[in-house]
Amino acid sequence: MSFNTFGHLFRVTTWGESHGPALGATVDGCPPGVPIEAEAIQHWLDRRKPGTSRFTTQRREADEVRILSGVFEGLSTGTPIQLMIENTDQRSKDYGDIATSFRPGHADLTYHLKYGLRDYRGGGRSSARETAARVAAGGVARAALAALVPDLRITGMMVQMGPHGIDRARADLAEVDRNPFWCPDPVMAEEWAGYLDALRKAHDSVGAVIEVVASGVPAGLGAPIYGKLDADLAAAMMSINAVKAVEIGEGMAAAALTGRENADEMRRGADGPAFLSNHAGGILGGISTGQDVVVRFAVKPTSSILTPRQTVTAGGEEIDLVTKGRHDPCVGIRAVPVAEAMMACVLLDHLLRDRGQTGGARGHIG
Amino acid sequence: MSFNTFGHLFRVTTWGESHGPALGATVDGCPPGVPIEAEAIQHWLDRRKPGTSRFTTQRREADEVRILSGVFEGLSTGTPIQLMIENTDQRSKDYGDIATSFRPGHADLTYHLKYGLRDYRGGGRSSARETAARVAAGGVARAALAALVPDLRITGMMVQMGPHGIDRARADLAEVDRNPFWCPDPVMAEEWAGYLDALRKAHDSVGAVIEVVASGVPAGLGAPIYGKLDADLAAAMMSINAVKAVEIGEGMAAAALTGRENADEMRRGADGPAFLSNHAGGILGGISTGQDVVVRFAVKPTSSILTPRQTVTAGGEEIDLVTKGRHDPCVGIRAVPVAEAMMACVLLDHLLRDRGQTGGARGHIG
Amino acid sequence: MSFNTFGHLFRVTTWGESHGPALGATVDGCPPGVPIEAEAIQHWLDRRKPGTSRFTTQRREADEVRILSGVFEGLSTGTPIQLMIENTDQRSKDYGDIATSFRPGHADLTYHLKYGLRDYRGGGRSSARETAARVAAGGVARAALAALVPDLRITGMMVQMGPHGIDRARADLAEVDRNPFWCPDPVMAEEWAGYLDALRKAHDSVGAVIEVVASGVPAGLGAPIYGKLDADLAAAMMSINAVKAVEIGEGMAAAALTGRENADEMRRGADGPAFLSNHAGGILGGISTGQDVVVRFAVKPTSSILTPRQTVTAGGEEIDLVTKGRHDPCVGIRAVPVAEAMMACVLLDHLLRDRGQTGGARGHIG
Amino acid sequence: MSFNTFGHLFRVTTWGESHGPALGATVDGCPPGVPIEAEAIQHWLDRRKPGTSRFTTQRREADEVRILSGVFEGLSTGTPIQLMIENTDQRSKDYGDIATSFRPGHADLTYHLKYGLRDYRGGGRSSARETAARVAAGGVARAALAALVPDLRITGMMVQMGPHGIDRARADLAEVDRNPFWCPDPVMAEEWAGYLDALRKAHDSVGAVIEVVASGVPAGLGAPIYGKLDADLAAAMMSINAVKAVEIGEGMAAAALTGRENADEMRRGADGPAFLSNHAGGILGGISTGQDVVVRFAVKPTSSILTPRQTVTAGGEEIDLVTKGRHDPCVGIRAVPVAEAMMACVLLDHLLRDRGQTGGARGHIG
Repeated sequence: MSFNTFGHLFRVTTWGESHGPALGATVDGCPPGVPIEAEAIQHWLDRRKPGTSRFTTQRREADEVRILSGVFEGLSTGTPIQLMIENTDQRSKDYGDIATSFRPGHADLTYHLKYGLRDYRGGGRSSARETAARVAAGGVARAALAALVPDLRITGMMVQMGPHGIDRARADLAEVDRNPFWCPDPVMAEEWAGYLDALRKAHDSVGAVIEVVASGVPAGLGAPIYGKLDADLAAAMMSINAVKAVEIGEGMAAAALTGRENADEMRRGADGPAFLSNHAGGILGGISTGQDVVVRFAVKPTSSILTPRQTVTAGGEEIDLVTKGRHDPCVGIRAVPVAEAMMACVLLDHLLRDRGQTGGARGHIG
Repeated sequence: MSFNTFGHLFRVTTWGESHGPALGATVDGCPPGVPIEAEAIQHWLDRRKPGTSRFTTQRREADEVRILSGVFEGLSTGTPIQLMIENTDQRSKDYGDIATSFRPGHADLTYHLKYGLRDYRGGGRSSARETAARVAAGGVARAALAALVPDLRITGMMVQMGPHGIDRARADLAEVDRNPFWCPDPVMAEEWAGYLDALRKAHDSVGAVIEVVASGVPAGLGAPIYGKLDADLAAAMMSINAVKAVEIGEGMAAAALTGRENADEMRRGADGPAFLSNHAGGILGGISTGQDVVVRFAVKPTSSILTPRQTVTAGGEEIDLVTKGRHDPCVGIRAVPVAEAMMACVLLDHLLRDRGQTGGARGHIG
Repeated sequence: MSFNTFGHLFRVTTWGESHGPALGATVDGCPPGVPIEAEAIQHWLDRRKPGTSRFTTQRREADEVRILSGVFEGLSTGTPIQLMIENTDQRSKDYGDIATSFRPGHADLTYHLKYGLRDYRGGGRSSARETAARVAAGGVARAALAALVPDLRITGMMVQMGPHGIDRARADLAEVDRNPFWCPDPVMAEEWAGYLDALRKAHDSVGAVIEVVASGVPAGLGAPIYGKLDADLAAAMMSINAVKAVEIGEGMAAAALTGRENADEMRRGADGPAFLSNHAGGILGGISTGQDVVVRFAVKPTSSILTPRQTVTAGGEEIDLVTKGRHDPCVGIRAVPVAEAMMACVLLDHLLRDRGQTGGARGHIG
Repeated sequence: MSFNTFGHLFRVTTWGESHGPALGATVDGCPPGVPIEAEAIQHWLDRRKPGTSRFTTQRREADEVRILSGVFEGLSTGTPIQLMIENTDQRSKDYGDIATSFRPGHADLTYHLKYGLRDYRGGGRSSARETAARVAAGGVARAALAALVPDLRITGMMVQMGPHGIDRARADLAEVDRNPFWCPDPVMAEEWAGYLDALRKAHDSVGAVIEVVASGVPAGLGAPIYGKLDADLAAAMMSINAVKAVEIGEGMAAAALTGRENADEMRRGADGPAFLSNHAGGILGGISTGQDVVVRFAVKPTSSILTPRQTVTAGGEEIDLVTKGRHDPCVGIRAVPVAEAMMACVLLDHLLRDRGQTGGARGHIG
């Protein structure tokens, strides 16, 4: 079974291959009356666009989005919004040699095993190029969130590259847009630049950790037991290419804590509970608390490297393969805007779901 | 929106509260003709049952499962299988004081904020007691997997308690069933016993890391892009109470690796590719490779501790709360059989989905 | 693929066989805070209960519903509501002879062909007994509708039995509860009694047409294009045992009308449009108009008759089969409360969906 | 909630408005390896195309389909297939006067009431133009069915126009493609031509009854209880613009039959049961029997007529409205290829679902 849709009330179906004529997202369930402009969506796409620094793939795609439906006179109508991005720079010839051989770490093998055939050009459907469609859909979600929850803010950043993590004491969200790594620690950003240059020259690549923080999230989002906000975020982030782990709040580190340390104690706030800490990452029992929602995830190193690796061909031959083509030495970088988009889509979906079931009614404190 | 169903072709809906008359699982989509016996399901439930060692809650539940539908003369008929477990030891009086106050780290607060009211007895729907229903459903999934993929094996184990991780060199799967911690390292199991006793006496609790390994998983399971096997496993594990992070294969550690290190190189095997390593955890592009599927997750320390913690009441009063009742000092222990059950359900669901879409046809190697 | 759930935000999963230990409905998505009492649900079940007149099956079932979850101190909590009805009068011995032969007009054959095995006792899962679970779930839906849309009324009635249709001029909704046929035309109810007695004595059965009218339905319910209110109602009614056709408003008769005749012209009303007719049955473009929603459906004659009919056995033998057991001579009668329940479930589901997507905001007139 | 997807394993999401830049279908779940060609899909679109006879709207659309994804070297890859049709003849100026007034019988009013705003040009999303996307998706479904069930045939036809029904004795499927009405009775086709010319001149329109027959459908398709084949077909047909009723087999007429008359008796056939009649329309208990699947539905008369009709404006003014633009005097005609497409999509979806759950295993006879 293929399954290219996520979300329940805000539903996004992405389509398209790396080297096909176009790719896009069919966005169903956007509330009516939301101002939607191609320019605003383009803004988010431009942040993800390849070729903007020497640290990302040199494939040059205009990544220009067209809105084909669902918007009339600048407002969403409540009907499906089709977002299309035409592929322009399709250097398919780079991929001839992977038609019948399997790049280690790639989905070449598994698509072959599952489907029996595949569009091998640039990884076809399994290419990270698919994430452009997510970012476009995320642009719609952001517009709807802006209309419904004006104070909500979503910020993605890279907090670790290879073994080098940021110094939280130096972190400043204002720095995130000022370096090619979405790094909140300007000192570390410098260090990463040198580190990554060296790796690239060594025909190698490296992994990263991304963090996405959503502030201003209303309490009450999340649909227990099998539509928990954290479970949906975990699936959303894990669905991004090359992601191998997802953490909420304290994440893996929670295993080493005691109950005393981990308790997020509460005092009375102006307008609900005031938490003294946020180990929980803003989610309890699968439902948002009103604190910052904090998600982190690990991206593995780019599998496409210029160093030969042992593999096999469909014919069963054992070969050494060098992956040519234009690749990101650290795919984590471009995962940042994608993760922000996924966060936006998940939050909007849950906002609509909650409004449907509970009517947005809330228990009070005090 | 409430949402208590998971799976697409193998669909499980759990229902019931900690201190209601009963809880259970409505299991829809089990293939017909599978031998299903209450005894076999009971076997899995007994592994999860509370009160089996001094390291788990002393609540004593028979946890006896009844099959109310969907099985005829010992075989599944293809219609919904209703599994019911009656609650017998409901000491509701322990919970009177949390009717209007919110235990830190619990879902009391968020259920109150979302729904405006809640069944507070024992945490109601948010109690880990709900996981008994998952284990029962997992028993059905295991029976179907046994019929369809006889070589498939699922093994859960605890690999870290607090800061103390197992020594992989000492690990032996045969040890897992021989200690109350599902620990494959017998030396560490001893150490944990002393460590946990001390914590319990100190009115504290601790987190853990659980690992679940599935071997014999056919290649080709997983439904890209938004039904990836790893994304579905991430959601499944994150939906378990107190889980804060999920890893596939190398997990968070993948961030620190280079592309050379992380590549799972391949040689030709007897019957498909032979991998030289398994950093990927058996999943590439969201589809199983045929290697072991390896999932790990972190469970936070039990929030219910006998040490007072600051919190507020629904009325807005600031109080110090001690959580009475009978609690696990390390909830991670009892998460092991639950995680195995979730793995079984997810794998069966994807097996059926794959058979539906591709007919199980496969590309070959050699 | 088995599929025993209907609805999106208000989701009902029924389970259970005719002669198993119990049957019921897992109701997920009921808004929180709705007063739910077993007695109120029982009220609806009693209307459907067999054995209440000589015109329905003499199987005597208490059909007593128990609420096992999701309700606390008389109010829905927003978690799944499990409704269980135990089977008490299971005369399985009547069914021994259909274990291997296929009653014409029944699902015996198709369950055999699809699943390879079946619970043959009383038709197993395909028995109309399953509809008790729908009526119970409908009781929950009615309670939620009463809280959210107090003016909404749902009335089911039989308008034709065999070739004998009611006289609309004589129809009076107050009559519906005063005869065993839910017939609004008291003269016709008398006639049907004699007609049905004769049929029963002749070891025959007969079909019927049922009409369900919902008044006070808010405008705006329905989710185009593939969640249209009329399409969902059509599926809901067609899913009832023995239903062969569904009509909305003018129904099949619309085919014979001209555009002039069929136009529901509008004048300005006090609070929106005032329609001069209701050929549309209260639905335009799949969305409710605010007029009465009118659905009609045809129920085929009971297939179980005491007259021998030609059929085959699983072994391939050609036989003449007489269906013993206790059967309704006109199953349409007991379909009335079932259809009301389905109407309630569909309307509540769409109310919640609409509130989720549009927030219930509306365009105005005037 | 908007909801523009139908199907479970074969999932079709349509998008686009009557007068937007384009419309199309995102088709997810087509099995891999199916030969898919734009020309073959175009063949089906050309049958639906407007402007091919004087009896359909004179809007001239090329209705040229482009495949943007999911097909590689002529074969489906198992990934989403995006089908796009650009709108070329958009005479929006015809629609200025319905921007603020509501055409009786149209969705103008309900879209306004539900969403608060709408793309009024040509009916926007509610236009029958959306059905072009269904026909394109149906082309993919037909290609997959041809690969999986070569003997399956789907034939749509008009069997009644206004009060004039065909004579079944004269019916010949070979005639269906030889007249502009898809009429199997050539004598009646002549009569309809004169009848419709007269209506058109009188500025009126008329309804119709369409029948779709699928032969060669394997037994066992349909997913009880809430994914019954007949219920899914009912929803699918009811979702087509202007449809007001759906019948399976005997349909509404079943109400007037007795159990003796309605029984489809069986003898032993060469390869399973041989039915002596087909009142059931090929479906028992929601599962296909192997007989012809027979669906009929009523289409109301075109609401857009040149005769003035009373209505109101958004401002609350009472007016008489004449619907200009280019309209079909009998929209039923163009519903024929649409209904065939829906039948193909539903059958393929159920074929994949059944293969997923039961593995296609079957009970035998003899």
